[in-house]
Amino acid sequence: MQHMDSPLSSIKANTGVLAFDIFGTVVDWHGSILREVQSLYPHVDGNAFALAWRAGYQPAMARVRSGELGWTRIDELHRMILETLLPQFGLSHLTESERVHLNHVWHRLDAWADSVEGLTRLKQRFTICSLSNGNIGLLTNMAKRAGLPWDCVLSAEVFRAYKPDPATYLGVAKVFDLEPSQVMLCAAHHDDLAAARACGLRTAYIERPLEFGAAQPKDVSPQLGNDLHASSILDLAALLGC
Amino acid sequence: MQHMDSPLSSIKANTGVLAFDIFGTVVDWHGSILREVQSLYPHVDGNAFALAWRAGYQPAMARVRSGELGWTRIDELHRMILETLLPQFGLSHLTESERVHLNHVWHRLDAWADSVEGLTRLKQRFTICSLSNGNIGLLTNMAKRAGLPWDCVLSAEVFRAYKPDPATYLGVAKVFDLEPSQVMLCAAHHDDLAAARACGLRTAYIERPLEFGAAQPKDVSPQLGNDLHASSILDLAALLGC
Repeated sequence: MQHMDSPLSSIKANTGVLAFDIFGTVVDWHGSILREVQSLYPHVDGNAFALAWRAGYQPAMARVRSGELGWTRIDELHRMILETLLPQFGLSHLTESERVHLNHVWHRLDAWADSVEGLTRLKQRFTICSLSNGNIGLLTNMAKRAGLPWDCVLSAEVFRAYKPDPATYLGVAKVFDLEPSQVMLCAAHHDDLAAARACGLRTAYIERPLEFGAAQPKDVSPQLGNDLHASSILDLAALLGC
Repeated sequence: MQHMDSPLSSIKANTGVLAFDIFGTVVDWHGSILREVQSLYPHVDGNAFALAWRAGYQPAMARVRSGELGWTRIDELHRMILETLLPQFGLSHLTESERVHLNHVWHRLDAWADSVEGLTRLKQRFTICSLSNGNIGLLTNMAKRAGLPWDCVLSAEVFRAYKPDPATYLGVAKVFDLEPSQVMLCAAHHDDLAAARACGLRTAYIERPLEFGAAQPKDVSPQLGNDLHASSILDLAALLGC
C-alpha cells in the first residue's frame, strides 16, 4: 500500500533479512483450529475454542518470562492451556493420543492465501526467516506441510527468550552479522513491531483483518512508526519490488 | 550401496529426520577454497592453504569445549585461524575487507554434484536438516547460494555446543520430539557418526573420497556400526527408496 517513515529506496538497498511473525501473520490459526475442531468435535463451538486457546498464549508465556516456569516450549504451553479448555468445552473424555493429536493442530495451520507466493517472491531478493514464539519443530512441520519456503527457521527456542524480549529481535541481526536496521520484522501485530523497532529493526505491518475470525474483525488501519504497511505478504513483495 | 546392521524396512518406517553433517559431506570445502584462493591469490598454494585452514578447525573448537574460550561461532574461529595463516602464506598485506571476504569463503562453498538432487529427493519422504558446527548464518547463506533445500537449519549455535557433544545429536531428537533412534545422522566422518550412535541415533556413512583433494584420497571403506553406507547422497536417497 504505502511506505511511511523511511525512503523506500533506502529500505530496499539496506535490508538483508526479512523476519516474519508466524501465528496470524503467515498462517491463519483461527480458521485452521476452527475447521479442525468442527470436523473432529462438531458439537463444540470451534470459534470460541480457537479464541480461548489463543487467549491462554500470552499468560502462559508470561509465566516463563517471570521465571515461574523454566524454559518451556510452545508445544508444552499449548498443551497446558488445552488441558484447562477440555472440561470447559465438554471434551474431558479425550484420550491421551487424541489430546496429542489436537495439540499438534498448531503444526498444521494453513497459510493465508497469499503467503506462499509472497514469500517465494521475497526470497529471490532477501533472506527470509521466521521469528516466532513457536518452537523449531512446530515451525518446521508447519513449513513443510504448508510449503513455506524459509531460508532459515528462527524461533524463540533458538534464543531461549520469547518475543518481545530484545534478545529475539537482536538475535536475528546477530545470527546474520547485520546491524539491527538491516533486519525488517514483518508482522500483523503492532506490539511486536513496536518492540522490534525499539531494538532498531525496520518494521512492516501486514494487514490480517480476519485473524480472529469473520465475527471479530480486527482494526488494521496504519499506525505511525512502521516503515511499511502492506495489505498482504504479496503486497509487501510488490512494495519491495519483488 | 548396502545396508549393514539394521533391517532397511525398519529404518525407512521409523526414521523421521535426516540430519546432515555439512563440511565435506554436503559441500566440498577443499575444492571451493582451493578455487577461490587460486583465483584471488595465484601465487599461493591453494591446496596447502585449504588443508591448513581446515586443520585449525578441531583445535579451535577444542578451545571452546575446554572453556578456554567462551561460546564462539565458527565464523570467528575461522577468522582466528586465518590470521595465523596469512603470514605463513605471504598474505599479510590483505586489508580488513579482503580478510572479511576471504573468511566468508566458508559461506560460499560449492555442493558436491549429487547433493542438491539427493536432498531434494530425500525431502519428499523425510524432514531434512543440517547438523553442523557451522553457525546458522553461515549455513543459511551457503544453502541459499548452493540451493540446499533444508527443511530446517540446525547448528551447534542452536545448542551452544559443538559436535561431538551429545547435546547436539540429542538436541535434534528433542527439537522434533522424537526418540534418538528416529533420527539418522548422515556424514562422511566416522568419528561424528560414532558419537551420534553412542547417543542412540541411526547413522549413514557417505563416501567423499576427494574431501581432502585429489592429492590426498580418503579411505572410504565401510566400517562396522553404521546402519547405511552410501556412495553419495543420491545413493542414500536410492537406498531409502526416494
